[in-house]
Amino acid sequence: MKPFCAAVDWGTSRFRLWILAEDGAVIHKLSSDEGLQFSAKIGFSKILEDHLNSFKCLNDLPVIICGMAGSRSGWKEANYLKAPVELTHIVENSVKIANTKRDIRILPGIAQHNANSPDVMRGEETQLFGMLFDKSNIVPTGTTTFCMPGTHSKWVTFENTRLQQFATFMTGELFALLSEHSVLKLSLSEHGVSNPTDPVFLKYVNKALSNPHEISTQLFSIRSSHLLGFTGLEAGHAALSGSLIGLELAGAFSKHGKPAHVTLMASGSLGDLYAAALKECNVEVTFCDAENAGRIGLYQAAKILW
Amino acid sequence: MKPFCAAVDWGTSRFRLWILAEDGAVIHKLSSDEGLQFSAKIGFSKILEDHLNSFKCLNDLPVIICGMAGSRSGWKEANYLKAPVELTHIVENSVKIANTKRDIRILPGIAQHNANSPDVMRGEETQLFGMLFDKSNIVPTGTTTFCMPGTHSKWVTFENTRLQQFATFMTGELFALLSEHSVLKLSLSEHGVSNPTDPVFLKYVNKALSNPHEISTQLFSIRSSHLLGFTGLEAGHAALSGSLIGLELAGAFSKHGKPAHVTLMASGSLGDLYAAALKECNVEVTFCDAENAGRIGLYQAAKILW
Repeated sequence: MKPFCAAVDWGTSRFRLWILAEDGAVIHKLSSDEGLQFSAKIGFSKILEDHLNSFKCLNDLPVIICGMAGSRSGWKEANYLKAPVELTHIVENSVKIANTKRDIRILPGIAQHNANSPDVMRGEETQLFGMLFDKSNIVPTGTTTFCMPGTHSKWVTFENTRLQQFATFMTGELFALLSEHSVLKLSLSEHGVSNPTDPVFLKYVNKALSNPHEISTQLFSIRSSHLLGFTGLEAGHAALSGSLIGLELAGAFSKHGKPAHVTLMASGSLGDLYAAALKECNVEVTFCDAENAGRIGLYQAAKILW
Repeated sequence: MKPFCAAVDWGTSRFRLWILAEDGAVIHKLSSDEGLQFSAKIGFSKILEDHLNSFKCLNDLPVIICGMAGSRSGWKEANYLKAPVELTHIVENSVKIANTKRDIRILPGIAQHNANSPDVMRGEETQLFGMLFDKSNIVPTGTTTFCMPGTHSKWVTFENTRLQQFATFMTGELFALLSEHSVLKLSLSEHGVSNPTDPVFLKYVNKALSNPHEISTQLFSIRSSHLLGFTGLEAGHAALSGSLIGLELAGAFSKHGKPAHVTLMASGSLGDLYAAALKECNVEVTFCDAENAGRIGLYQAAKILW
């Protein structure tokens, strides 16, 4: 197959590259640790060109990029678009890298530009844009809510295909910090995982949902509960992830009201945990392919540009 | 002055030793990093005896200890007393180290032994015991509330001199994790401090107090607010400490009701921040000497024992 473009999701910690054919099929792909901080030192152009050379790409193969490469500390700043916004605007507002032999564009992120609830995304807008074109998904009509779990989970509200508002929750980062670096580490089994059907997980989801203001003491209670013999080490992970996902739901529901239905852009065990927590609150859940949405979004942007 | 006893506050990270005279006067003192984890490797007895030898203490000088040395992973477990409890009971329930030439006792911690709000303290009970005997403080009568800010802040309710209930908040540890290891680090000035009169600090206290369920998104907004130019780097510390102290107050008020008055066992800038936050909620504040309370509590226990 003849390459049509290269698509790059250049995140804080990960670099993902796909060489795509005219019809969107994947010819080559790679994933590495060459995220923002690494790349800023080595040079964005060098990293990209080295990979394209290794795939024997022609000098004029165009490249479409999303993510942190477009941040102020990235390759070239692609200014945030202001929400509410139609997602197609990310394509029109892509930023061109100057003085390069090939056409290289970076897609902008989206910002909620008000002092009371400021928020930003970079990369998720491209996943959402891809979701609109993925034939396996239903195109959103009316008011719809998307949940994108992760290090910094995003809750996004659409009005048809227009992104209206969104909120970021530090759930994944808090989980990593608390499970690896806090006193709670002593009450978590080393290779523990959370299981969506575990009653401990659901109990802590409910605790955080009913009393989110007590989260800071609920978290410490994971330690106390273990020290006093009420729970074992194996319950720690479930209690911690239940608490933090419950807190996220409490915040998301209060920001935009509790939706009857949420589209969950997640896969694997994290998606299962969120689905179980949402079902516990009587929210209907539809899964939506998160893994391919970014690549599809980049491809659709490339099709519009070239 | 002739030594009467040695008093040790043996914490998770710090070791504090005082050689005290019969009237409680400090003859010698030292503070080191020989906390629990270090001591568990080197040996508790060795560390203690080396220090006592360096002060030329006699072989029969008795030693009173509080803190993590009495935990399961410490020198010898001193089982938690169950709240509600009169604080004098910590003396009667001190644990004696066997087969030593001198009389060495470890004071127990206190636990809230119920599965719904399990909680533990080790060390704070001795500070509170000392507070009861410190002539500069008023002995609590009726229902009184104590706030002990720190890595794991404690809120303690007394009924006269009886400790009724308490709750631990991870405020200090969350502050350290988020300011040093999270994405928020990028939006905090390197040597920033929080100032109790800073409007940013008070604004975030109020934000967390009014919408504690949104804390996870409010925390991320510190980053967004900086990225979007609403706030500068210097505002980061104030926003973070305001958010976390506000969250603690929201949790503490909901657990035990908002008290009209709180005794703040804190000193320095941390005490000033808590006092400012409490005044913002129209809670009257009295300061209480936190620095000497632990030593005074150990001395009073020694006076009862010997």
